Amino acid sequence: MRQHADAPVSAGIDRLVATATDRRPGTPDQRIRVGIVGATGYVGAELIRLLTRHPRVEIVGLQGRDRDHEPIGATHAHLAGTGLAVDSSLPDVDTIFLALPHGTAAAIVPEMASRGTAIIDLGPDFRLRAATDYPRWYGFEHPSPDLLGDAVYGLPELHRTELTDLRHAEQAIVGAPGCYPTATLLALAPLARAGLIGDLVVDAKSGVSGAGRDPKPDMLFGEVNESVKAYGIGGHRHVAEIEQELAALGAAGATTNPGAAGVDFLPHLIPMTRGILSAGHVRPTRPTSQAELDDLYAAAYAGEPFVTVVPAAPATKHVLGSNHVRVFVHHDERTGRILAIGVIDNLVKGAAGQAIQAFNLVHGLPETTGLEQLPLAP
Amino acid sequence: MRQHADAPVSAGIDRLVATATDRRPGTPDQRIRVGIVGATGYVGAELIRLLTRHPRVEIVGLQGRDRDHEPIGATHAHLAGTGLAVDSSLPDVDTIFLALPHGTAAAIVPEMASRGTAIIDLGPDFRLRAATDYPRWYGFEHPSPDLLGDAVYGLPELHRTELTDLRHAEQAIVGAPGCYPTATLLALAPLARAGLIGDLVVDAKSGVSGAGRDPKPDMLFGEVNESVKAYGIGGHRHVAEIEQELAALGAAGATTNPGAAGVDFLPHLIPMTRGILSAGHVRPTRPTSQAELDDLYAAAYAGEPFVTVVPAAPATKHVLGSNHVRVFVHHDERTGRILAIGVIDNLVKGAAGQAIQAFNLVHGLPETTGLEQLPLAP
Amino acid sequence: MRQHADAPVSAGIDRLVATATDRRPGTPDQRIRVGIVGATGYVGAELIRLLTRHPRVEIVGLQGRDRDHEPIGATHAHLAGTGLAVDSSLPDVDTIFLALPHGTAAAIVPEMASRGTAIIDLGPDFRLRAATDYPRWYGFEHPSPDLLGDAVYGLPELHRTELTDLRHAEQAIVGAPGCYPTATLLALAPLARAGLIGDLVVDAKSGVSGAGRDPKPDMLFGEVNESVKAYGIGGHRHVAEIEQELAALGAAGATTNPGAAGVDFLPHLIPMTRGILSAGHVRPTRPTSQAELDDLYAAAYAGEPFVTVVPAAPATKHVLGSNHVRVFVHHDERTGRILAIGVIDNLVKGAAGQAIQAFNLVHGLPETTGLEQLPLAP
Amino acid sequence: MRQHADAPVSAGIDRLVATATDRRPGTPDQRIRVGIVGATGYVGAELIRLLTRHPRVEIVGLQGRDRDHEPIGATHAHLAGTGLAVDSSLPDVDTIFLALPHGTAAAIVPEMASRGTAIIDLGPDFRLRAATDYPRWYGFEHPSPDLLGDAVYGLPELHRTELTDLRHAEQAIVGAPGCYPTATLLALAPLARAGLIGDLVVDAKSGVSGAGRDPKPDMLFGEVNESVKAYGIGGHRHVAEIEQELAALGAAGATTNPGAAGVDFLPHLIPMTRGILSAGHVRPTRPTSQAELDDLYAAAYAGEPFVTVVPAAPATKHVLGSNHVRVFVHHDERTGRILAIGVIDNLVKGAAGQAIQAFNLVHGLPETTGLEQLPLAP
Repeated sequence: MRQHADAPVSAGIDRLVATATDRRPGTPDQRIRVGIVGATGYVGAELIRLLTRHPRVEIVGLQGRDRDHEPIGATHAHLAGTGLAVDSSLPDVDTIFLALPHGTAAAIVPEMASRGTAIIDLGPDFRLRAATDYPRWYGFEHPSPDLLGDAVYGLPELHRTELTDLRHAEQAIVGAPGCYPTATLLALAPLARAGLIGDLVVDAKSGVSGAGRDPKPDMLFGEVNESVKAYGIGGHRHVAEIEQELAALGAAGATTNPGAAGVDFLPHLIPMTRGILSAGHVRPTRPTSQAELDDLYAAAYAGEPFVTVVPAAPATKHVLGSNHVRVFVHHDERTGRILAIGVIDNLVKGAAGQAIQAFNLVHGLPETTGLEQLPLAP
Repeated sequence: MRQHADAPVSAGIDRLVATATDRRPGTPDQRIRVGIVGATGYVGAELIRLLTRHPRVEIVGLQGRDRDHEPIGATHAHLAGTGLAVDSSLPDVDTIFLALPHGTAAAIVPEMASRGTAIIDLGPDFRLRAATDYPRWYGFEHPSPDLLGDAVYGLPELHRTELTDLRHAEQAIVGAPGCYPTATLLALAPLARAGLIGDLVVDAKSGVSGAGRDPKPDMLFGEVNESVKAYGIGGHRHVAEIEQELAALGAAGATTNPGAAGVDFLPHLIPMTRGILSAGHVRPTRPTSQAELDDLYAAAYAGEPFVTVVPAAPATKHVLGSNHVRVFVHHDERTGRILAIGVIDNLVKGAAGQAIQAFNLVHGLPETTGLEQLPLAP
Repeated sequence: MRQHADAPVSAGIDRLVATATDRRPGTPDQRIRVGIVGATGYVGAELIRLLTRHPRVEIVGLQGRDRDHEPIGATHAHLAGTGLAVDSSLPDVDTIFLALPHGTAAAIVPEMASRGTAIIDLGPDFRLRAATDYPRWYGFEHPSPDLLGDAVYGLPELHRTELTDLRHAEQAIVGAPGCYPTATLLALAPLARAGLIGDLVVDAKSGVSGAGRDPKPDMLFGEVNESVKAYGIGGHRHVAEIEQELAALGAAGATTNPGAAGVDFLPHLIPMTRGILSAGHVRPTRPTSQAELDDLYAAAYAGEPFVTVVPAAPATKHVLGSNHVRVFVHHDERTGRILAIGVIDNLVKGAAGQAIQAFNLVHGLPETTGLEQLPLAP
Repeated sequence: MRQHADAPVSAGIDRLVATATDRRPGTPDQRIRVGIVGATGYVGAELIRLLTRHPRVEIVGLQGRDRDHEPIGATHAHLAGTGLAVDSSLPDVDTIFLALPHGTAAAIVPEMASRGTAIIDLGPDFRLRAATDYPRWYGFEHPSPDLLGDAVYGLPELHRTELTDLRHAEQAIVGAPGCYPTATLLALAPLARAGLIGDLVVDAKSGVSGAGRDPKPDMLFGEVNESVKAYGIGGHRHVAEIEQELAALGAAGATTNPGAAGVDFLPHLIPMTRGILSAGHVRPTRPTSQAELDDLYAAAYAGEPFVTVVPAAPATKHVLGSNHVRVFVHHDERTGRILAIGVIDNLVKGAAGQAIQAFNLVHGLPETTGLEQLPLAP
């Protein structure tokens, strides 16, 4: 599957499509050629950090705004040692990772996908199934609504089979989830599947790296430090994903569709760089118990390589720098409510790490390849 | 009202009780003699910081654990300039501020109060009206249940008249509110009064100073920094106050008593020193509108010297170091829910500042005396 | 001295100059009318915070970039309660505070000063006595070199008499010191006066608020948090002030002029918002002792209202939010060197607070007026 | 070299010593059995994090204070996934890592070393060559002064040959360097070798994790956040290492021995968790130039896998979580001085990572094995 750098693009593409019944590299020495578009942002940096150490990947191209021909170290000083550089002329690749503002990927993906290049889009352009959600939540008409049905929501714990099936598909488009939805959905999925979510408040807290690297006054250290505030009042865009996926999970057994009334989702910005904690406050559709919840969660996440159900409230620091997720569920005897908490590193499991996890599945590699790092603490 | 330092305690007390129909100092030069018990903790430090600059107060005694006869600067380096020292033998005072662990004040207040000393207790021992709440929430039997009915919950915005009435009362006991209840109740009071709270989730975020100064491993900088976690799972003690006061507010008009089902309250520890943001997620008992909410809040807080209703989500930094509160209310058209947010500095409006605000009322002083500082930002 | 708001500017000015033999307000009720130019930056905010509570000041005008006619709360949310607004048409004032980029004040001060308005410039344009220092350190030719000799370096602890003399001067121009020089000079002044500084390394650490509020990428929370770096390599502009003042102090007794060889000054940016710690590493010109140093410092700072000599290494948190300075001096027996440390809040004693301290002297007010706040900790 | 877990200790030891002419594991599948003593501290955690991912290592035992038989996740939550547990009965190991308070390792190493176990001591007990330095700097008489001459100072960039020679030595004792000396020595080594250090001030800044995990009041978040202070006034213990190694480096060419006068070393605690920046201010013994310095540093660090000489002042964030070092050198034309800065992660290159780097050399493995992680930023 790996292409030679000097092969003409069209030739490479032709050969790729011809053999595109299998995206898995043949031998252990063969490497998948990947490109990263949007390499100069924080998510781009994290993709580079992780893919550089991925044993089956070769990064062959980086694109980034206003940085053409510069070494990547000029933008991301910590990555100077990689020797990579930004170059607007992206060579032929097997898989392209896109870390772009909304609306941008939608414009370029159709052509790329038709050439057989696997697409891992870390923006929102291929996360939603209903084309009408794009004007509603993102303010643009989706230019390729027909692709939305084929694209896979790249949360492996919920869509592993579909991601794996892309290995043999002619077109492979993954819409990697947003950071808040990742933490929220993994905390709530077992409840949604069991039809237990009767009423839902999601109150989330995030480090500032999710806001990206563009210099905005309210992201200055002097403004963020020693302060907390809510934002996205009245409807953060990630609600769309959360409602879509909860509805899909609950379709079978839910007596109340949480998407019907609308999820009450409130994100907060807190003075840290990385990490998301999402707390789901659930009024259940019927009485339940801690024992039932423990069973549900144990069953849901047994064998999951990155999700751990923990018996005490987890901290984001427990997963910092890693693709790990910690999930906690509690039945409150006094109020009858359920509390479900998920913690992730927003740039790893909430972005670059999860994208690589999906990428591994698309290419038939072990799901944890290149993602084995342990969390960094203290 | 001011006592001479060399007057025998009993003589002073006798005179005080004899004239205790008025706790207001007579002339602008007269100062109220105050003592602080628990001066070596963070709340004690904040009481000293603020009372030192209070124009009608003279601090005549500081008590603190294991620090007898030491200058206060040995404990609180920033207060070295005050020249105060810790001394276990507290002289005769007009008002005593108590910043003690729960159960401790309850044991010493009855005797103090009977002597006519005004009590401003910053712990929980006189916040709750039902004696049965103490074993339930704090694990101790209250030794003086008869005093609980006389004590006033020291949230001036809700209990101003009762606090003012203490000026002429023989016994004056104020149970100053907890930090979370202060932010939560001020955010929710107009809704509770209007009977609008049908279902309530309170999700709060606090800096670490609320945990005090005792060296606990999970309060180390290396553990707190770059991390967030929930705690108090299954029932933080402050729930008791929140439910008590919401029930009282809603008694007249509420169709649903939020105390009945129980408030779902979840606090989080975030990496900052000061500040609390409390987000109340409310499912209203009936349809409402932003216009109705705006009117309710404007009416509730018109003329309040410390509470400002703001049109955009506030940050804790907007009130840092001050006794200010910012309250924000939002009606979500999509979900029909109400979001009510309050932000405070947990050590000022959430502790020492509020205690002084109540103290001013008890002594017939302008409510803002000594509390005029503006917030410190950035 | 106070002008009526409706008086024509020229009339007011004429009257002011006519009576400019005394800048002190006559009665306790009279207030000095001040304006602030550069009110939308961090230093501007701090001037507003402090002057709003100054009992002899009335803020009559605020100017700020791109914010005309906006309430100040739109820029500085924490100051919303002041009710002040930005307005480009500054009314007639007695004193103007300028918080502007270098080169800007120099252009407008001559005309202002000639009208009798007292000038407190918080930028560098009137700090240096040698006009040749401006092209060298700041890259511009000073437009009014003749004024440099009249302007007073506004460090009250070193130039109190000159500042006080401005009360009766026709022109009053104060060049308020930079933040690093304030901490550094107060730490080193007793050594410089004693001629003890033979060789000098100054290694300083600052919070980020000194860099101002303009959104620069390397001031984002995500970049500053969990990181430290040196900057200003090869000559930070504040070296000019430090060398000028040390030379002046040492002129009498110094056997080695530290300005000759040049001070080795290295500032660092550390992950905090406020505070500067400046560590002066001194190789003395002759053997000395801790006892001698203690005597020198005690004599130098006895009676100073804001400077405290402390017996253990101070932290910036000990002075946060206040105009206080803590100075520590240590003679190292092993190496024979002297360590002299100063800590300040860079926005208070390093900027706005010190400017007000100088302002008080210029107007014949007690030096501490409006600056009595205690530090905020934790 | 790998021992079977069920082999009796003595048998294992005998075999090991018998074949101790080579500590290198024979086949790629063979793993070196290691134990960690002091596993419950921050350095212990970092050893576990890194060694778990080391392809030639098997962690067979963890010892830690008061935690016997507990899963390591109970102490280090982020390491719960490793499945390791603390156990006071350490099995037979090839190499033991010791992360212990000073004086503790000295008592147990002699017996261990005599059995052939390779010792990587991360404490100070085997860093200093002169036995007299222990009472002077650490306050204890070294119990095995004869071993000090055999122990190797484990800074691979300075002692690579000696470390490599331990592969075939009967006794292998490595005294891994302190965190400050690592950053300082790597910044200064080329100058010391060239005899350029005439006078030396080292001003260093550290995150708090270097102070360990014991709950001390001044390490609480509320105390550390928004503050900086110097400590170790009058002689931090790490001076001993710095002077020892600089003297050794300069023995050949130095005209001035920096150890003679004594290094002026001042560490600071800043509000971050990880990272050290050490700034060396050097008055050179003779005039030099940027070009000469660039050549010296390029020559010194060409081919070094972990040290990068950078052209602009580095930040600690550029190396966070990695074993990387960034070194910067600047000749100041104005003052004639040299500035040499080194940045490291204090827990990786300043402790656990460097210990593993030395371990790799002792066992004949590629020096970077298990240390390939890129820095984590933002």
